[in-house]
Amino acid sequence: MIRDVDITKLIIEKFAEEFLKNIELDVAIVGAGPSGLVAAKYLAEKGKKVVIFERKLSPGGGMWGGGIGYPYIVVKQGHEVLEEAGIKCIEKQGYWIANSIEAVAKLVATAIDAGAKIFNGMTVEDVMVRDGRVCGIVANWSAILQANLHVDPISIEASFVIDATGHDCNVAKIVEKKYGLGTPGGKIEGEKAMWADEGERKTVENTGEIFPGLYVTGMAANAVYGSPRMGPIFGGMLLSGKKVAEIILEKVR
Amino acid sequence: MIRDVDITKLIIEKFAEEFLKNIELDVAIVGAGPSGLVAAKYLAEKGKKVVIFERKLSPGGGMWGGGIGYPYIVVKQGHEVLEEAGIKCIEKQGYWIANSIEAVAKLVATAIDAGAKIFNGMTVEDVMVRDGRVCGIVANWSAILQANLHVDPISIEASFVIDATGHDCNVAKIVEKKYGLGTPGGKIEGEKAMWADEGERKTVENTGEIFPGLYVTGMAANAVYGSPRMGPIFGGMLLSGKKVAEIILEKVR
Amino acid sequence: MIRDVDITKLIIEKFAEEFLKNIELDVAIVGAGPSGLVAAKYLAEKGKKVVIFERKLSPGGGMWGGGIGYPYIVVKQGHEVLEEAGIKCIEKQGYWIANSIEAVAKLVATAIDAGAKIFNGMTVEDVMVRDGRVCGIVANWSAILQANLHVDPISIEASFVIDATGHDCNVAKIVEKKYGLGTPGGKIEGEKAMWADEGERKTVENTGEIFPGLYVTGMAANAVYGSPRMGPIFGGMLLSGKKVAEIILEKVR
Amino acid sequence: MIRDVDITKLIIEKFAEEFLKNIELDVAIVGAGPSGLVAAKYLAEKGKKVVIFERKLSPGGGMWGGGIGYPYIVVKQGHEVLEEAGIKCIEKQGYWIANSIEAVAKLVATAIDAGAKIFNGMTVEDVMVRDGRVCGIVANWSAILQANLHVDPISIEASFVIDATGHDCNVAKIVEKKYGLGTPGGKIEGEKAMWADEGERKTVENTGEIFPGLYVTGMAANAVYGSPRMGPIFGGMLLSGKKVAEIILEKVR
Amino acid sequence: MIRDVDITKLIIEKFAEEFLKNIELDVAIVGAGPSGLVAAKYLAEKGKKVVIFERKLSPGGGMWGGGIGYPYIVVKQGHEVLEEAGIKCIEKQGYWIANSIEAVAKLVATAIDAGAKIFNGMTVEDVMVRDGRVCGIVANWSAILQANLHVDPISIEASFVIDATGHDCNVAKIVEKKYGLGTPGGKIEGEKAMWADEGERKTVENTGEIFPGLYVTGMAANAVYGSPRMGPIFGGMLLSGKKVAEIILEKVR
Amino acid sequence: MIRDVDITKLIIEKFAEEFLKNIELDVAIVGAGPSGLVAAKYLAEKGKKVVIFERKLSPGGGMWGGGIGYPYIVVKQGHEVLEEAGIKCIEKQGYWIANSIEAVAKLVATAIDAGAKIFNGMTVEDVMVRDGRVCGIVANWSAILQANLHVDPISIEASFVIDATGHDCNVAKIVEKKYGLGTPGGKIEGEKAMWADEGERKTVENTGEIFPGLYVTGMAANAVYGSPRMGPIFGGMLLSGKKVAEIILEKVR
Amino acid sequence: MIRDVDITKLIIEKFAEEFLKNIELDVAIVGAGPSGLVAAKYLAEKGKKVVIFERKLSPGGGMWGGGIGYPYIVVKQGHEVLEEAGIKCIEKQGYWIANSIEAVAKLVATAIDAGAKIFNGMTVEDVMVRDGRVCGIVANWSAILQANLHVDPISIEASFVIDATGHDCNVAKIVEKKYGLGTPGGKIEGEKAMWADEGERKTVENTGEIFPGLYVTGMAANAVYGSPRMGPIFGGMLLSGKKVAEIILEKVR
Amino acid sequence: MIRDVDITKLIIEKFAEEFLKNIELDVAIVGAGPSGLVAAKYLAEKGKKVVIFERKLSPGGGMWGGGIGYPYIVVKQGHEVLEEAGIKCIEKQGYWIANSIEAVAKLVATAIDAGAKIFNGMTVEDVMVRDGRVCGIVANWSAILQANLHVDPISIEASFVIDATGHDCNVAKIVEKKYGLGTPGGKIEGEKAMWADEGERKTVENTGEIFPGLYVTGMAANAVYGSPRMGPIFGGMLLSGKKVAEIILEKVR
Repeated sequence: MIRDVDITKLIIEKFAEEFLKNIELDVAIVGAGPSGLVAAKYLAEKGKKVVIFERKLSPGGGMWGGGIGYPYIVVKQGHEVLEEAGIKCIEKQGYWIANSIEAVAKLVATAIDAGAKIFNGMTVEDVMVRDGRVCGIVANWSAILQANLHVDPISIEASFVIDATGHDCNVAKIVEKKYGLGTPGGKIEGEKAMWADEGERKTVENTGEIFPGLYVTGMAANAVYGSPRMGPIFGGMLLSGKKVAEIILEKVR
Repeated sequence: MIRDVDITKLIIEKFAEEFLKNIELDVAIVGAGPSGLVAAKYLAEKGKKVVIFERKLSPGGGMWGGGIGYPYIVVKQGHEVLEEAGIKCIEKQGYWIANSIEAVAKLVATAIDAGAKIFNGMTVEDVMVRDGRVCGIVANWSAILQANLHVDPISIEASFVIDATGHDCNVAKIVEKKYGLGTPGGKIEGEKAMWADEGERKTVENTGEIFPGLYVTGMAANAVYGSPRMGPIFGGMLLSGKKVAEIILEKVR
Repeated sequence: MIRDVDITKLIIEKFAEEFLKNIELDVAIVGAGPSGLVAAKYLAEKGKKVVIFERKLSPGGGMWGGGIGYPYIVVKQGHEVLEEAGIKCIEKQGYWIANSIEAVAKLVATAIDAGAKIFNGMTVEDVMVRDGRVCGIVANWSAILQANLHVDPISIEASFVIDATGHDCNVAKIVEKKYGLGTPGGKIEGEKAMWADEGERKTVENTGEIFPGLYVTGMAANAVYGSPRMGPIFGGMLLSGKKVAEIILEKVR
Repeated sequence: MIRDVDITKLIIEKFAEEFLKNIELDVAIVGAGPSGLVAAKYLAEKGKKVVIFERKLSPGGGMWGGGIGYPYIVVKQGHEVLEEAGIKCIEKQGYWIANSIEAVAKLVATAIDAGAKIFNGMTVEDVMVRDGRVCGIVANWSAILQANLHVDPISIEASFVIDATGHDCNVAKIVEKKYGLGTPGGKIEGEKAMWADEGERKTVENTGEIFPGLYVTGMAANAVYGSPRMGPIFGGMLLSGKKVAEIILEKVR
Repeated sequence: MIRDVDITKLIIEKFAEEFLKNIELDVAIVGAGPSGLVAAKYLAEKGKKVVIFERKLSPGGGMWGGGIGYPYIVVKQGHEVLEEAGIKCIEKQGYWIANSIEAVAKLVATAIDAGAKIFNGMTVEDVMVRDGRVCGIVANWSAILQANLHVDPISIEASFVIDATGHDCNVAKIVEKKYGLGTPGGKIEGEKAMWADEGERKTVENTGEIFPGLYVTGMAANAVYGSPRMGPIFGGMLLSGKKVAEIILEKVR
Repeated sequence: MIRDVDITKLIIEKFAEEFLKNIELDVAIVGAGPSGLVAAKYLAEKGKKVVIFERKLSPGGGMWGGGIGYPYIVVKQGHEVLEEAGIKCIEKQGYWIANSIEAVAKLVATAIDAGAKIFNGMTVEDVMVRDGRVCGIVANWSAILQANLHVDPISIEASFVIDATGHDCNVAKIVEKKYGLGTPGGKIEGEKAMWADEGERKTVENTGEIFPGLYVTGMAANAVYGSPRMGPIFGGMLLSGKKVAEIILEKVR
Repeated sequence: MIRDVDITKLIIEKFAEEFLKNIELDVAIVGAGPSGLVAAKYLAEKGKKVVIFERKLSPGGGMWGGGIGYPYIVVKQGHEVLEEAGIKCIEKQGYWIANSIEAVAKLVATAIDAGAKIFNGMTVEDVMVRDGRVCGIVANWSAILQANLHVDPISIEASFVIDATGHDCNVAKIVEKKYGLGTPGGKIEGEKAMWADEGERKTVENTGEIFPGLYVTGMAANAVYGSPRMGPIFGGMLLSGKKVAEIILEKVR
Repeated sequence: MIRDVDITKLIIEKFAEEFLKNIELDVAIVGAGPSGLVAAKYLAEKGKKVVIFERKLSPGGGMWGGGIGYPYIVVKQGHEVLEEAGIKCIEKQGYWIANSIEAVAKLVATAIDAGAKIFNGMTVEDVMVRDGRVCGIVANWSAILQANLHVDPISIEASFVIDATGHDCNVAKIVEKKYGLGTPGGKIEGEKAMWADEGERKTVENTGEIFPGLYVTGMAANAVYGSPRMGPIFGGMLLSGKKVAEIILEKVR
């Protein structure tokens, strides 16, 4: 027989146990879009303790809706990242097309299978900075923020923080406002107009550290450096997620 | 080199092609929560042409948030459905616990791999009824409805329609209002208070046809028949999804 | 030195520990207004395991604002309940006047000192009913409901549930809608027009069980039985809170 | 007999076919107000492939409401453009008065008859820029933007882009923010106070290229150059639409 | 030289003159969708004094957006009404396809050319009833209603009032609530589920008088009589508009 | 020299003094529209202690906006009431026209000069009922209600209460819901369609007591009895205000 | 007998006639608060053609609510302006207290009796500027702006424009943004903190021309010049209204 | 017997009496969060006339919700301030944990028992400044501001004003905008990223005068000086409240 309070007990115990295991991390990733998911997978595979904090209940970022709501995405470079995750890609005229819903579901599954954790419904509203280095994130329940309640957040330590929040580059914005960034211009340039070819190249190139302890990946990288946006082509973002993982793995070797 | 309009072209062509292939269906499932996803998988596996129409961009229904936002779910019966989909289940005190994010991602992946389609961001605002039988659904872009635009929907034919919209039982409501239901009371009773044990049993028992051509599964079944709700225990819903598939497969044998 | 994650750890551990201790209760009180607080105090004093679930972050209900926002309340009968809690009462023309802010603060302090717990920011969205008896409550974070997220609630068992939600009588409404009430009319009558003298008398008289396992106190009692409302005079509500505690203590003797 | 899915099929096929024919354009016009409609007509008449992208479902911009909601407009110069379109103009005291509803309907009809296309319900949220030249627009469904969904837009190439969005000059704003404009001041000056006489003269004078590949017409021209606004007198706007067409036709001769 | 106040003067004079000419009408049509526009055209052609009152600034109703926002409509029967208005129709598989934007623009142009007036931005919030007969409409600026201002409407007399407000059937609803309808059931049945074939037939059949002085056309007719809806196929609506005109012309012969 | 706190002191003292003088009234009028103002004037002139409680900050009800926002009103009968108040009336075709702004200002001035009080920004959210008779009103600050704060109202005794809230007939609605009305039907019929002639006659005829202690005047009278509405003609409302005063004066003679 | 359309006719004719008489003015006053009303009265008394344009339906600005919603105002200087208007003033401790509702009503009545017009429900959204001089205002229906409709405004010429919009100083803001002001700083300083004594003195001192053709009075004057605000003491505002009238009368002598 | 108007009378009299006693203060504290409550207690204990003005109906600021809504707070330093107020503190790993609901209730009770007053539901929207010194506050009902009513505030004199509004530092912002601050940078720096250890130290250090007559305490102090935030650890805030009291007591000795 099922007792209702057993369910209550199991869920609260499990959450408390898992959350408490994850308040001191190797890598905290903010945003569960394609770049964040790919980064999480490659980091977790190498045994890093990595958690993605996702503002919404569902991960996937802007990938679910494909292009103007038609659930298909295109890749040129990087389709092997999709295929590694078991996502079906159809080649056509030198591009690969995939179903965007399948793509999100399998990127999520792959990251989790590799050992990454996702805490959803949590908004990173600030970072921890000690002696000029980002050393963690400060999170709250998104529902609390949406309901406009006056409630304090909590802190999670991380050796590395990755801003994978897309063109909003929320974490970069917080750090820019409070301390300035470590980029040449010292500030967020904002994404430039659409130019898929250039944008794809740049998003990988721009991937990296923008303030001690803070890394940027995917569209957030282009927003920080003022590079073009790309639309529903996702290869650059996937490769950027892979690259940020490699950079961090290199550092901690 | 990537040309931006190539991406536009590939996505629009692909969408038109896929959508046009799917306007005459064996089964139209409304709602991509756990019951809908499971039903889709079992139907598609047997070669049925099945599409899930999901109101939001992301499938998964109320499963992402687990219990009060802690991303864990519990099952008693039916954990084998989770495990078939590759979802890790930890046994504890006679229950199985799973991560709710992993669960959604893998149920989606499994349904798609079995051959089911998902059209997301579409709201089923009505059904098609001909000679007293539901014979299709009437859908519009959810964004159009949310933006309150005055725009006509389109029709998709289906031999069977499954209402898997959870306790809102949206399709049942439309049919109830326009024609009455084929259930004993002829109307939607509304879900009763929480009682997991009873609810789990009933959700499977209630699964079935409620109007010629219209089937109900998962929490929508309990809402129609006035049975108890269950909270974040999902075994009954998974088994109900399986059962509705079996009932339909039986009919078309 | 303070470590930020220590704070995180201490708070999450403490919450999980306290919450898990309180999922099987003697009495669950819904609403931390004056009646609920007084009931909690008298029940806890006698060693009952009692928790108040309060929808807002701050307890106190409609008492903070006194009359039309002027922070003063009046009592005729029952001022001894205020004085027991250390609330200063000034006698004037046969009434006692107290500061409404002091009154809430000290009623809260007294209930907590007596051993009652308060979980705030939680909304009771349903009850548990087994074999025709209310046997617990079903709660969710209020923020989740306000933010309109699709997330399942959890269950807490209680031998007795008290509806102390004021003239909304939320719990009574849920039970009325799903099962009907055990009152003569079987339904909620709605509060009648203002008549302090009659209302004060009735609120105590109406206090009691309205469905197996479900009790009603304070203004919720008048709403259920169609008795007059009283305005910013609080004696009846205080005495009703005391009475509901006595009735339950009698039952479990 | 009518089959519902035939309608679905015909509409989706037709849309896909027409849209795919129009993703590489001679001229993309943003905004279907009077200037945009007139420009479209003159360009299409000369065989240019021209599409107007209109944010709302209905074209016409601010013309429907005439002056303070009274459906009449006035012209001094340029009434011949109205008459060419078959719009009845009544001369009075040296001005011509026309019904604003008739005016929109017939300007739309004329543009379409000349061969221009209108895609409505689409918002141009960005431009394509390659090597310092605007070479297309980036559009999304307006409903998706209004519903605040996170979904990627698509790109449409155009040799020339015309900002006909009225005093908001949305396209000019995007380009100004990302690259600066090619005007003397390099930025949008904002429309000046009302002065119909001066405004009418200036709107024609200001018409032209403001960034390589980007042209401005109608009230958007006055907004860019800081010229006066005109109120419900539309002659200058009509002539500006004609002029921008002539400038572009000249370029491509 | 243009003087700004000349424009003010011309517009206000013109509006007052036109409006005052039209406060005693042969026919008042509520709603400028396809049925209303067609009815207006046929009535005006025969010399009737007819005004359409349209709630929005732009006429056209739900036609602009075609099907799910793709600007194309389909007709089976009644395409000759489109062609009479100069709207290009492409025959395909026994249907005719037209561009929905062109269709609205030309139906409007045709109605106006036939002599009908359109007052836009006005909401019919009530009717005039004298001795059991609808004898006019009661209108206000839509903006006043949307801005929630407390302002009285004005009355316009009409020998016949046509409810062409689509499936909302607003005028029928007002009369139903205040007096009941003259239909068999005496009340509004509500549109039934989608069935284009049946709906097309019924919309013409249902067209006619529903209360002394009040006529119903288009989708409003199906809503009143509980007939099926049709989606983006418009032939029935066009023929219904024609039919209501013929019925009224018959009466006043 | 002016001291800021002197102003604070003078205003609070004055308000407390005036309000406390007016908590036991002869007549409480709810709503400061034309009927309420006229009633107040005639009652105050005869020495009755009368207060108008007005929900908004500004009295005048729906009169400020005249007809569709044009600030003019019309009277046929009852223009002498306007002229007594010094309001300029121009006779034209058997009617009198007045400026609606002047009309409100002078009706207010006249009522106040006669000795009536107005408390503005207060909403009557309930009545006092003792032994089956309305014996006062229950009011709160409108701002508190608009801001959705949980705050108790206060009570004001009155021998007679007049509902002058226009077609909403708010007070009648409260009493209807809680006790039923003393009218033939026992309930609120709702205003009928526009018919100025009949409405003008009825509004005076319907004026009177609808529940022991509760009187109705102006458009509220027509709403209660199901009589026609009148539009921007105000003679009946003025005479109704006068009549309700006479009825009450008769009673207390 | 009353005919409904007679009312329609009389109101529309009257409005058109009055409005057309007032599109070329001596003085256009923006805002019908105390300063604007007093200015209007003194200007109209001397035969100037003066119109107040008021954004809301009710004139009076912030005066209705007295201090924190208690309907009383205080004056030190300038009480004679109140008394001239027949407003009862009670002297107390060197100040005069008046009822704020009576004060507004009688200031309005006095201005109208002196010959000033008020057009209410109209928002001045811009000015007319010709050759560097403000020469009129540009207005629209406030409802149209609140309902966010895209509709053009109309122009009214005036030899002098007075900004009497209170601390928002809306007209000054428009002119500042487009041209800069003619004040020493060339820009709006913003009101300073509360200091009634200084504010009262300054509001009169600051009254005058701030750009060719544009005058400022009342709290708008203090906002422009960065002087203190005063709270619910109104003498300075009344005297400022008087002074701006005198300055303009002097100019046109 | 209870008379309803007695309650009305007692509450209004009491409020008027108490409010009028408190319009000339020694210290006005803005914000009833932990720092404000502690400051009030220490000031009142020494006989200072001190009032806290709290924007919401309930005092307590962000303390009710503990950390991410779990009602527990942590202190390292300063737990003796909690214990003095009778709040139970559990020592764990060098920290003290307390229930946040108990903490607020008892801090409020203690402040009131010490003689401080709290006026709730009032927003300080400005200050009084005379000769370059803050000498009072300017308040309005929060409900009036939330309901967006145009109503004047009132003034309360105070020798010292304390900004205890948390990280919004509302009073400091007003003074900064109108006059600049007296701090080194002359402006508000904004709180820095989370660092509990540093933040705790700084919040005490930053406590003090920031403009003649204006003091800052708690998180507002860190916001002004650009120091780190702390999360749900409250020792620094409690000590800062104590320190600001000591500074002021020192000044007035």
